[in-house]
Amino acid sequence: MPRYLTGVQSSGQPHLGNVLGAIAPAIEFSKQPDAESFFFIADFHSLTTIKDGELRRKHTRSVAAAWLACGFDAQKNVFYRQSDLPEVTELAWYLSCFTPYPMLANAHSFKEKSDRLSDVNAGLFNYPVLMAADILLYDADFVPVGKDQKQHLEITRDIASAVNHAVGQEILKLPDALIREDVMTIPGIDGRKMSKSYKNTIDIFAPENMLKKQVMSIVTDSTPLEQPKNPDTCNVFALYKLLAAPDQIAEMRKKYEAGGYGYGHAKKELLALILEKYASARSEYTRLMNDKAELENLLRVGAEKARAVGSVILHRVRQALGF
Amino acid sequence: MPRYLTGVQSSGQPHLGNVLGAIAPAIEFSKQPDAESFFFIADFHSLTTIKDGELRRKHTRSVAAAWLACGFDAQKNVFYRQSDLPEVTELAWYLSCFTPYPMLANAHSFKEKSDRLSDVNAGLFNYPVLMAADILLYDADFVPVGKDQKQHLEITRDIASAVNHAVGQEILKLPDALIREDVMTIPGIDGRKMSKSYKNTIDIFAPENMLKKQVMSIVTDSTPLEQPKNPDTCNVFALYKLLAAPDQIAEMRKKYEAGGYGYGHAKKELLALILEKYASARSEYTRLMNDKAELENLLRVGAEKARAVGSVILHRVRQALGF
Repeated sequence: MPRYLTGVQSSGQPHLGNVLGAIAPAIEFSKQPDAESFFFIADFHSLTTIKDGELRRKHTRSVAAAWLACGFDAQKNVFYRQSDLPEVTELAWYLSCFTPYPMLANAHSFKEKSDRLSDVNAGLFNYPVLMAADILLYDADFVPVGKDQKQHLEITRDIASAVNHAVGQEILKLPDALIREDVMTIPGIDGRKMSKSYKNTIDIFAPENMLKKQVMSIVTDSTPLEQPKNPDTCNVFALYKLLAAPDQIAEMRKKYEAGGYGYGHAKKELLALILEKYASARSEYTRLMNDKAELENLLRVGAEKARAVGSVILHRVRQALGF
Repeated sequence: MPRYLTGVQSSGQPHLGNVLGAIAPAIEFSKQPDAESFFFIADFHSLTTIKDGELRRKHTRSVAAAWLACGFDAQKNVFYRQSDLPEVTELAWYLSCFTPYPMLANAHSFKEKSDRLSDVNAGLFNYPVLMAADILLYDADFVPVGKDQKQHLEITRDIASAVNHAVGQEILKLPDALIREDVMTIPGIDGRKMSKSYKNTIDIFAPENMLKKQVMSIVTDSTPLEQPKNPDTCNVFALYKLLAAPDQIAEMRKKYEAGGYGYGHAKKELLALILEKYASARSEYTRLMNDKAELENLLRVGAEKARAVGSVILHRVRQALGF
């Protein structure tokens, strides 16, 4: 049974763009019967940028709660927090001794930052090695990644090959990248790609009044209420289209084109749709965020399942390398 | 009670140069009553250069056996193998995220190698971070080092300060370097500094026939047996002087200066002295190398003592950083 592995950074409460662009497709993917998905929250990685401990804990819980609330099946799959398996840092040390320095110095992710080297910490430089350890510790067959992560998979394969070659055994499994070509770009409230860094998110797990405020702030043009409007250039409609059923979309399109239908009306319909569509996810998210014990328990069970796999592989590596 | 920490690379069976220059003074130092010495065999570090697992295991046992055979008191102190506490790699990851990339790129130990970068692995680049973790994991007060290691101690202090500053607490103790100014240089059989890389060692833990062969190969000049000889330019005498009592030294000096005393005679006296002086160390070494279970047991006890200290500090770091 092929094993898929996915990690997400614990960079804060997921927004609509995360849910539609990453979480929902990954969950759909994880439902296939003849495959096993390992899914982890990459809190070790987050230390390269976030130093605030309280914030990291909150972000980590928030990401875990969002994935579970959106329907990730932690029973069928393996759902864990990276730092619950510090073994991965041990493997990363081993791997680093087989990683040519120039391979990391020439990695895109590092080169992008090399014009402001003094801000770059060694963790950022070593990021691809820890990522390789994340993958190799579990004998993952496939790693679904965006195109920007393709090089990191190549680095992972190169390191694994170097180790296997040095010890004369296939102790590490070479993973394949599963390039996601069709990643949806979700527009934010200003029409640009929805992203925390643009402060243009729709936070579907936020309290209703905050969510309402965000939807009502979606940028539109100033066509008067009475006049017909072009749905295909409207940010509200663009978001509605992503969530609504075909007949709902057709109906709203008609209203836009008929005139006498204002952006305020459209925003209210969008908000109602969001609240309806994510009703159960929102309440489940809130429940999990308030039930710290349950969330911790789910993560603990996931860590045990991950360790059952990872400890075998780490033992194999230790044996071969003389530890 | 101040805590001293020393690590040695597991780079093979210690020779006379190691014993006189490093092991004996460290053991003497570790005997002081009001201090505690942590001593570990740095097998994780050895992976930066040695990839052969069997060789590493052998080297690690050999170094452990030699220190114990020379009288290191594993009861009073803490004697452990680095890889028995993989927690140190977890701490190293944390530290790396607070280590500016240029600090490592500018480290002497890395710069020396930067003319042949393609041979340099990321482990060598990260070496000072793992060394910092070795020290900081145990709240070490002092680290006895040679002058060449002074910069690594400064890096350790800088990283610890950066972490403490970021979390607003003194969670890591800043260690002080204890610079050993008086490191003895022990001549090898060719007169150069005794070193494995020069293949000029006297392997005091080797079987007697091999040891004899090495002593008999000490390079001398071709002064005929009958003539007086200058002890102060002779490699045999230089080594004898390091091991013998004052009256023995004076006696041999007389023989050199009187003539009728050949280098072969001097070599035999040196060999006899070595065998006498290290008789119990040699037999204890052989015993420990043959009693794998006892050696492993001693290391296990040491690892437990180290973990009792390290786990507290790692917990403190995890708490502060949000893991």
